[in-house]
Amino acid sequence: VFVLMQEVCSRQSIDRVLAELASMDAIGHVSSGAQRCTIEVLEVGPRLDRGRLERLPAVAGVLDEPGQVLAACHGSPPRATEVALGSRAIVGGRQVAVIAGPCSVEDEGRLLETARAVAEAGAVALRGGAFKPRTAPHSFQGLGNRGLEMLGRVRQETGLAIVTEVMSVAQIERVTAVADALQVGSRNMHNTPLLRAVGEQEKPVLLKRGWSATLEEFLLAAEYVRQAGNPHVLLCERGIRTFEDYVRNTLALAIVPEAKRRSGLPVVVDPSHGTGRAHLVAPMCRAALACGADGLLIEVHPSPTRAWSDGAQALDLGGFRELMQGLGPLARACGRDL
Amino acid sequence: VFVLMQEVCSRQSIDRVLAELASMDAIGHVSSGAQRCTIEVLEVGPRLDRGRLERLPAVAGVLDEPGQVLAACHGSPPRATEVALGSRAIVGGRQVAVIAGPCSVEDEGRLLETARAVAEAGAVALRGGAFKPRTAPHSFQGLGNRGLEMLGRVRQETGLAIVTEVMSVAQIERVTAVADALQVGSRNMHNTPLLRAVGEQEKPVLLKRGWSATLEEFLLAAEYVRQAGNPHVLLCERGIRTFEDYVRNTLALAIVPEAKRRSGLPVVVDPSHGTGRAHLVAPMCRAALACGADGLLIEVHPSPTRAWSDGAQALDLGGFRELMQGLGPLARACGRDL
Amino acid sequence: VFVLMQEVCSRQSIDRVLAELASMDAIGHVSSGAQRCTIEVLEVGPRLDRGRLERLPAVAGVLDEPGQVLAACHGSPPRATEVALGSRAIVGGRQVAVIAGPCSVEDEGRLLETARAVAEAGAVALRGGAFKPRTAPHSFQGLGNRGLEMLGRVRQETGLAIVTEVMSVAQIERVTAVADALQVGSRNMHNTPLLRAVGEQEKPVLLKRGWSATLEEFLLAAEYVRQAGNPHVLLCERGIRTFEDYVRNTLALAIVPEAKRRSGLPVVVDPSHGTGRAHLVAPMCRAALACGADGLLIEVHPSPTRAWSDGAQALDLGGFRELMQGLGPLARACGRDL
Amino acid sequence: VFVLMQEVCSRQSIDRVLAELASMDAIGHVSSGAQRCTIEVLEVGPRLDRGRLERLPAVAGVLDEPGQVLAACHGSPPRATEVALGSRAIVGGRQVAVIAGPCSVEDEGRLLETARAVAEAGAVALRGGAFKPRTAPHSFQGLGNRGLEMLGRVRQETGLAIVTEVMSVAQIERVTAVADALQVGSRNMHNTPLLRAVGEQEKPVLLKRGWSATLEEFLLAAEYVRQAGNPHVLLCERGIRTFEDYVRNTLALAIVPEAKRRSGLPVVVDPSHGTGRAHLVAPMCRAALACGADGLLIEVHPSPTRAWSDGAQALDLGGFRELMQGLGPLARACGRDL
Repeated sequence: VFVLMQEVCSRQSIDRVLAELASMDAIGHVSSGAQRCTIEVLEVGPRLDRGRLERLPAVAGVLDEPGQVLAACHGSPPRATEVALGSRAIVGGRQVAVIAGPCSVEDEGRLLETARAVAEAGAVALRGGAFKPRTAPHSFQGLGNRGLEMLGRVRQETGLAIVTEVMSVAQIERVTAVADALQVGSRNMHNTPLLRAVGEQEKPVLLKRGWSATLEEFLLAAEYVRQAGNPHVLLCERGIRTFEDYVRNTLALAIVPEAKRRSGLPVVVDPSHGTGRAHLVAPMCRAALACGADGLLIEVHPSPTRAWSDGAQALDLGGFRELMQGLGPLARACGRDL
Repeated sequence: VFVLMQEVCSRQSIDRVLAELASMDAIGHVSSGAQRCTIEVLEVGPRLDRGRLERLPAVAGVLDEPGQVLAACHGSPPRATEVALGSRAIVGGRQVAVIAGPCSVEDEGRLLETARAVAEAGAVALRGGAFKPRTAPHSFQGLGNRGLEMLGRVRQETGLAIVTEVMSVAQIERVTAVADALQVGSRNMHNTPLLRAVGEQEKPVLLKRGWSATLEEFLLAAEYVRQAGNPHVLLCERGIRTFEDYVRNTLALAIVPEAKRRSGLPVVVDPSHGTGRAHLVAPMCRAALACGADGLLIEVHPSPTRAWSDGAQALDLGGFRELMQGLGPLARACGRDL
Repeated sequence: VFVLMQEVCSRQSIDRVLAELASMDAIGHVSSGAQRCTIEVLEVGPRLDRGRLERLPAVAGVLDEPGQVLAACHGSPPRATEVALGSRAIVGGRQVAVIAGPCSVEDEGRLLETARAVAEAGAVALRGGAFKPRTAPHSFQGLGNRGLEMLGRVRQETGLAIVTEVMSVAQIERVTAVADALQVGSRNMHNTPLLRAVGEQEKPVLLKRGWSATLEEFLLAAEYVRQAGNPHVLLCERGIRTFEDYVRNTLALAIVPEAKRRSGLPVVVDPSHGTGRAHLVAPMCRAALACGADGLLIEVHPSPTRAWSDGAQALDLGGFRELMQGLGPLARACGRDL
Repeated sequence: VFVLMQEVCSRQSIDRVLAELASMDAIGHVSSGAQRCTIEVLEVGPRLDRGRLERLPAVAGVLDEPGQVLAACHGSPPRATEVALGSRAIVGGRQVAVIAGPCSVEDEGRLLETARAVAEAGAVALRGGAFKPRTAPHSFQGLGNRGLEMLGRVRQETGLAIVTEVMSVAQIERVTAVADALQVGSRNMHNTPLLRAVGEQEKPVLLKRGWSATLEEFLLAAEYVRQAGNPHVLLCERGIRTFEDYVRNTLALAIVPEAKRRSGLPVVVDPSHGTGRAHLVAPMCRAALACGADGLLIEVHPSPTRAWSDGAQALDLGGFRELMQGLGPLARACGRDL
C-alpha cells in the first residue's frame, strides 16, 4: 500500500501521514521522487483505515501497486517526451533515429570506417561497446578506457553522437566524458544502484529491457532513473527469453506502442540482439518502424564473420546501406522521417 | 537417423535399404510422403554404417533430425506457394488477404452485419467459429451445426470466403461443406490425426501455431498436412506463451520472414489473439504487414463488450474500417496491395 | 460470468434464470455437468444485475472465472480421490504406484522382458505406447493395433496393469479393450472432443499436463473428463517448456501439492519426460515422492541406446531395479509404501 | 574459440600462442583465471588452423564454447567443494544447512526473536536483508547500515552465522564486516563487476540464479567469483520465470543434481522465493532435500501478514519449527543430517 502525496506538499503534511499511520499500528516509509513524494505503508494490519488516509491534507490517493503509483506520478495520458541525442537528433518526434555500429569497439581504423559508412547511410549515432558485459569470464570484456578514447576521437571526426554502455558506477564518469547517451544493458536493468547513478547524470540514458522483465518492471527501472532527476530515458526493446530456438531472443514488438502509451518515453528497438540473425534484422527493422518505434539500434561491422563478438547478428556496411534505402519510403508511409 | 530416398524410387530400392539396415542390426520404418519416401532407422547401434547407406541406389541422403528431412524434402530455397482463398483471393502473392469477423458465430443478424461491414472495408474472407475450443467445459462451445448453416448463408449473401475452425475428424465433412479454408486451432497443432484428416481434403488449411510450438514443430505440423496430400497450407502466427502479462500472448513476428524462407508457405498473422488487446491490434497489423505477412486474421464484432467470447480483443466495425484505411498506404509502401 | 446452480435444481429453476437473463438483455448458455449445472452469461451488458440473479431459487452463486466454478463444483477442500489401476493397485492412497516400461512398444520379446523386470522390481503397471504422437510425420508412429495386442498378451502373462496412450476418438474402443488406464498425452490435453470421449469410458484416465498449460487449464481439462461422467482421473506432471536447455523440459514439482490440494485428484510424476536425461530420473523420482506424488511414470528399456524413441531418457533394467531399491526407505520416511 | 593453456604455463608459451594467432590473421585475448589461463581467439577467419594451435607448447586444448572451458578448467568430474558457513556449519558435506530469517531486517526486537526461534529449531544461519533490491523506487529499500548493525548484534547474541545481500561494490566492505556469507541476488547474477568484487573477498558467496539464467550462465557467473580468487561459492536455486501463474516463480529442482555434478559446488534451495506461497514451502523443502540439496534458504517472520516485504511467502515461527521437525527423518532417510 502506497500513499501518494500531491505535487506540492509540505514536510508537515508528510509528518501528519506518518503520525496517522503510527496510530493505525503501521509504519510509513517516505520516498521522495523528482516529482512526487510517496509513502509506503509497512506492516499493513487490520487497523489500517484507507479512508482516513485519503482525507488527510496533501494526500493525492492511496494505491495498492507500484505500477499504479507509476501511472499516477506521470498523469494519464503521459506527455510524450523528446530526448536529444547529441546535437543533431531528437528521439521521440517525427524523426526515427538510427543508431548503428559494432558490438564492441575493436580498433580505431575499423571503428572510423564503420562510423563514416553508417553516417553516410543516414545513422545519427554510433553504437559500440568499450565495456562489454559477457557471460563468461574468459571472454573478451571490451577495450575499456582505450575503447572510450577511440569513440571520443571518432565522435570528433564524424560528428556522430556516441551511445555506449556503462556497466558500473565506477565507470560512469569516464563514459559520460565521451558518450552522448549512456547505455544500461539488459543484464543491468535491475541494477538499481547503477540506475540511480545514471539518473544523477545529465546525459540521456538508453535503458535496455531485461531478458525476462515485464513491462511494469521495465517502466519501474526507468522510474529509478527519472526519480534520481534524469528525465531523458530511451526505452529499448531487445528481445526476451522464451523457448524459441531459431532466434537468439524473441523480439516482442507489442511493447513499442504499449510502453509509449503508458510512459510517454521514446522507444528504440534493437533487432540485432532481438533476433541474433543478420538476415532477420531488415524485416524486424521494418516491423519496428511500422508499429511506432522512435529509433533503431543496429549492429554493423565491416566484416561480421571476423567480429570479436556477436558476428552472427551484424550487418556489413553494404547490407546496412541497403537496409536504410529500403526504410526511407516505409518511414514516410508511416508519417516519419529517417 | 533418417534415410531420405530420391523423388523417384522403386519399392526394390526401399527393400534394399531395409535389408542393409537389417544387416547392421537396425530396423527401418518406411514413411511415404506425397513427394518423398523416408526411412527412419530404429535401433541405431554401433554397426550402423552411414557411408554404406548413402551409397545405396536411390538414396538421397542420411540425415539426423526431422527438421533436416523437412528442409531436404522441399528443396532449398523452397518455391513460394500461393493458396487460393475462395474464388476471389490468392494468399501468398502481391495481395495481403484480410480475414475478419467475430470470434464465435452468435446470431445470423449480427454475423451478416459484420460480414457486410468487413467486406466493404476490404476484407476478402469472414472468420467466425461455429465449433469453439474452450478451456472450461462450462463455457460456451459454439453454436455447432447451426453456426455452420449461418456461415453458409452469409457466404452466399456476401460472396466472402469463409474461414472456420474444425476441432475433430468427425466435424470435417460438415465444416468442409461450408468453409473455404479449414482452420486448425493452436490447441490442435499437435493433433496429428486431425492434421492428417484435413490433409486429405482439397480445401486449404489455416494452421495456427501452438502456444509453445517451436518453428520446427510448426513446420512439421504443416508437413503432416502436406504429406497427406494437401499442399494448400496457410501458416498462422497468433502469439506464444511467455512470462509477459500486459498482453494475452507474445506476438513473435520474426517467424513471419523465417517461416516463409524455410517453407515457402504464406504466413498469416492474428494480432487479435497475438495481443488480446483491441488497442494493440492496429499497430501489430502494421508491423506484421511491414515484415512480410501475407494475410491478417482480425477479430471484429459489432459490439465487442457484449461478445460471447474474447470481447477484449475485438475491434468494432468503425475501428476495423479505420484500421483498413490506414493499412492501404503502408501496404503500397511495402509493394503490396490490400 | 457464470451462474452456478445448486446440486439439486429443477428445469424450472433454470428456465427462471434464463428468463431473468433475457430481461437483462443477456443470454444464458446452460451446461450440465455430472454434479452441477452452470449457466454462462453471454452478452454481459450494463443491465446485468448480479444481486437479482443470486437471489433466484436454486442459484448457488454468481462467479467470474471458470476456475471459480471448478473450485465451487468440487467443494473446499475437495475430498481426496482414490483411483484403481487394474486389480492390484490403488493410486491416491498410502501406496506410491510405479508405472514403468518402454516409450514405444517395439517387439513382444523385449516388452515381456521389460514387464517381468519392472514387476519384479516393484512396479504395479506397465507403460508403453502403441499409438505414438510424433512431431514429424516421417518418424515412427507406433505399432498401432499390433502393439495393443502385444500389450494385451503381456498383461495376461504378468498381471501388470497396462497404461497406454489414446490419440483419437477412433482409437478409444481398441485401446480400452486392452488398457487398465487410458493415457491422454500432453499434445492432447486441450483436445476437448477426446477428453469428453474418454470421460464416457469407465477406465481411469491418466491425463498429462500440456507443455505450457497453467494449473487452472490442467484442472479444467480434467474437468472435461469428470463432467462427461468419469471421475477416475490421474493428473500427470511431465515438465513444462521453458528457456532451460540442459533438460528436455522443466519439471515443475510445486504442482504436485497444489494440484492435490485444489482438486483432490492423485498426481503422478513423469521424470523421464520431465528431464529427458536418464541420470536425472532417480533424483527427480526422489523429489517427486518427497513432495507428495502418488505415482511415478518411468521409462525403462532393456537397451536404451537402441530404443526406437526417447532413448536418452530411459533407464535400463538394472538402473530401474537400483532406483526402486533406493526409493523404498524414502517412501517409508514419507509415510508411504512403494 | 578459446585456447586453454595448461595449469603450469609460462608467459613465453602465451606469447607463442599470440604470435601464431597473429600469423593466422587472428588476435588473442588473454584471460588469467585463478587456476588456468585461457586465450580467446578474436577475428576467427579462414586461416585459423586449430591443429597448429593444439600442438603448441603448454596448450591444453582448443575449445568452442565458454561452457567447455568451464568444464575443462574444473576437470571431470569436479571435486565436491565444502564451504564453511560461520564457525559451526559446513555446507556441501553430510549436513544440510538451514538458513532462515526475515526477508528484510525490520527492527531489532523482531530480528532477535526470529533468530532465537530459528536457532532453536535447528537453523545454522540467519538470513535477512539490510540492502533490498526492489522493483519500484518508491518501495522500501532496506534499513541499510542500521540493518547491518542489528544483524551484527544478533550474530553476537545468538552465534548464528549471518547471510545478507550485497547490492553494489560500494557496500561490500560494510557487509563483509558483519556477514558470514555475502548474498548476490538474482537481479545481480549478471553484474560481473560485483561478481569480481565479491570474488576478491574471503567470505563465502551465496549466488542466486538469475530469473531466466540457464545452467551454463549460472555456472559461469560462479566462475567470475572463482576466477577472482574466491572458491567458496554456494549456488542457490530460487525459481525461474515461466508462464506459471499460481506460484511466483517455477522452482526447477533438476538443477540441484545437475549443478552439483557439473561444478562440484554445494547447492542451496530457496523454496520461499521459489514458490512465493507459504503453504508450498514445506513440500518444496522436502523435495529439495530428497534430490540432494545441501542447504535450504527459508523466509521466516514472527507475523508474516505484517512483514514489510514478501509476507505471502514467509512461515511464522511455529510453522518453521514444525517444518524442521518433519525434515529430520527425511534427511536421515537420505543419508544426511539436519
